[in-house]
Amino acid sequence: MILVVCLNPALDITHEVAAVDWAGINRPAAVHDRPGGKGLNVARTLHALGADVLVTGLAGGIAGAAVTAALGELGVRTGFTPVAGETRRTFTVVDERREAAAFHEPGPAVGAAEFAGFLDDYRAALAAADAVVLSGSLPPGLPDRTYATLIAAASDAGVPAVLDAHGEALRLGTAAGPAIVKPNLSELEALTGRPLALGADVMAAACGLRGAGAPGYRGARAHGAHGAQAVVVTLGRDGMLAVTGEGCWRARPPAAVAGNATGAGDAVAAALAHGLVLGRPWDERLRHAVALGAATAAAPVAGEFRSGDYAGALTSVTVEQVSAEEVG
Amino acid sequence: MILVVCLNPALDITHEVAAVDWAGINRPAAVHDRPGGKGLNVARTLHALGADVLVTGLAGGIAGAAVTAALGELGVRTGFTPVAGETRRTFTVVDERREAAAFHEPGPAVGAAEFAGFLDDYRAALAAADAVVLSGSLPPGLPDRTYATLIAAASDAGVPAVLDAHGEALRLGTAAGPAIVKPNLSELEALTGRPLALGADVMAAACGLRGAGAPGYRGARAHGAHGAQAVVVTLGRDGMLAVTGEGCWRARPPAAVAGNATGAGDAVAAALAHGLVLGRPWDERLRHAVALGAATAAAPVAGEFRSGDYAGALTSVTVEQVSAEEVG
Repeated sequence: MILVVCLNPALDITHEVAAVDWAGINRPAAVHDRPGGKGLNVARTLHALGADVLVTGLAGGIAGAAVTAALGELGVRTGFTPVAGETRRTFTVVDERREAAAFHEPGPAVGAAEFAGFLDDYRAALAAADAVVLSGSLPPGLPDRTYATLIAAASDAGVPAVLDAHGEALRLGTAAGPAIVKPNLSELEALTGRPLALGADVMAAACGLRGAGAPGYRGARAHGAHGAQAVVVTLGRDGMLAVTGEGCWRARPPAAVAGNATGAGDAVAAALAHGLVLGRPWDERLRHAVALGAATAAAPVAGEFRSGDYAGALTSVTVEQVSAEEVG
Repeated sequence: MILVVCLNPALDITHEVAAVDWAGINRPAAVHDRPGGKGLNVARTLHALGADVLVTGLAGGIAGAAVTAALGELGVRTGFTPVAGETRRTFTVVDERREAAAFHEPGPAVGAAEFAGFLDDYRAALAAADAVVLSGSLPPGLPDRTYATLIAAASDAGVPAVLDAHGEALRLGTAAGPAIVKPNLSELEALTGRPLALGADVMAAACGLRGAGAPGYRGARAHGAHGAQAVVVTLGRDGMLAVTGEGCWRARPPAAVAGNATGAGDAVAAALAHGLVLGRPWDERLRHAVALGAATAAAPVAGEFRSGDYAGALTSVTVEQVSAEEVG
């Protein structure tokens, strides 16, 4: 079973309006409610891939009940820990030109006792987990070290963790030694504090997140025992770069991919966790991750993809092993 | 007890955003959820006036549960008939300049069996009612004659009805003989099919809605036995005009009133129902209605007012009886 942690799930509400009047009353032609937030996109993608998934996290109030019910209707198992606050909503207005304005509520303030209750539930769920995915924002009240705490607990239980976060939560989480971290380029740049050129620059920064650097990479500095075991940097249309204990890879999508970047990133996290659990070699993990990201970017809704797009992309992704020096 | 019928209640969601980016992601500084829809505004106003209120109508799904729970927290009694569909939400974005865009969902499709269930509940509630207020839009699936049906049932039970509707629902409802109908000027114009000048024009149109015309008004044509017993036309900043079985009145607010026109109209309906139940003479009913409308228009949220504003306005409203000829 793959355990997916959603500490700040969302009920995504979308209103489709023919031509929005931004200063008046609009009557949407269609209304959609979906479970949302990055972790839930990961869970829905894994479920669509046929993986056994359990979603845990924090949910409260009527939006929390709606998210739980909607996941149940999709056949996704949930085991949320209840909180007193209201699970957040996101509200998106889309008009015929597909332009969108989005309004994201912050999520409920989570108390220490509530998080302690979650931690008990999480440790119990780890007993049956083959991997855990930690993805998305933290609700108000939880400290930046939260993902680090959860990775340490997974490590104690012998469960590999995939982390998709940003900022301090990513930095502290990476130091706790997850199996894989998956920053995108801007998240990596935020962490290193400077713009990164594709190639050696990105490679050096990715190696910095690995505790042991890249094998054979002279510039790598060992950061002690702590760091991710593998770093996968997503580069949008340029595919991704992976620095792992088995070597470094560069994977490229079949053609320029446009579409839903958030959904694509979540699909990549799902594919990496799936490949980890299946024991796929790294080049195959990356091939699937790039293909699934491209297929999901092309779909209108995050967390969904057309299997034909996925299968088609799989045959045309290019994956090549690179030495750390070559990347430059 | 005053029975308030809300066939299409709403959960009103408001996001306050400092400076809206209509093409990007916004993170609201404040989020408010409130029971909404015209009928619920009427109910909250009556409750604030100290009246014994029971809200009936149709509610379903998580938004229906949220509306019911929120009214309970406000101390307003509810007895909604459950429906399978989802109670609608309205979503409003307000920025620092107080500009707003609103998105109104249509409401659940209501089946004939569901409405029959409501009608049973409604008839039972009428037994303890001193008056009934019928206000707001009809959800999809209910015919225009719905308010007429409910007024006829109230009439059978000897309960006077106050109707605040528009279009065909107003026309058919008026023909069913409610105690009071309360169109605003544009609703009255829509019904008569032409623009109406303040004065004789409005008076003639209002008399047309009264089955018996205005007492002493030569232009009145009797429309048979059917028509409202009293017609109150709200005129915005110009106050209101009433054509009743006791005579005609013109009431004017203390000064130009700006603000929330929707909320003001609902407050007027509440005040008219309250005055009816208290047995206030018409001039006093109108004084309270104009004052409560002005106080509510000045408040930021529909269904709320400051008691000081209400008390202050009461002393400065002018009410004068007019003959039908004088109005011109």
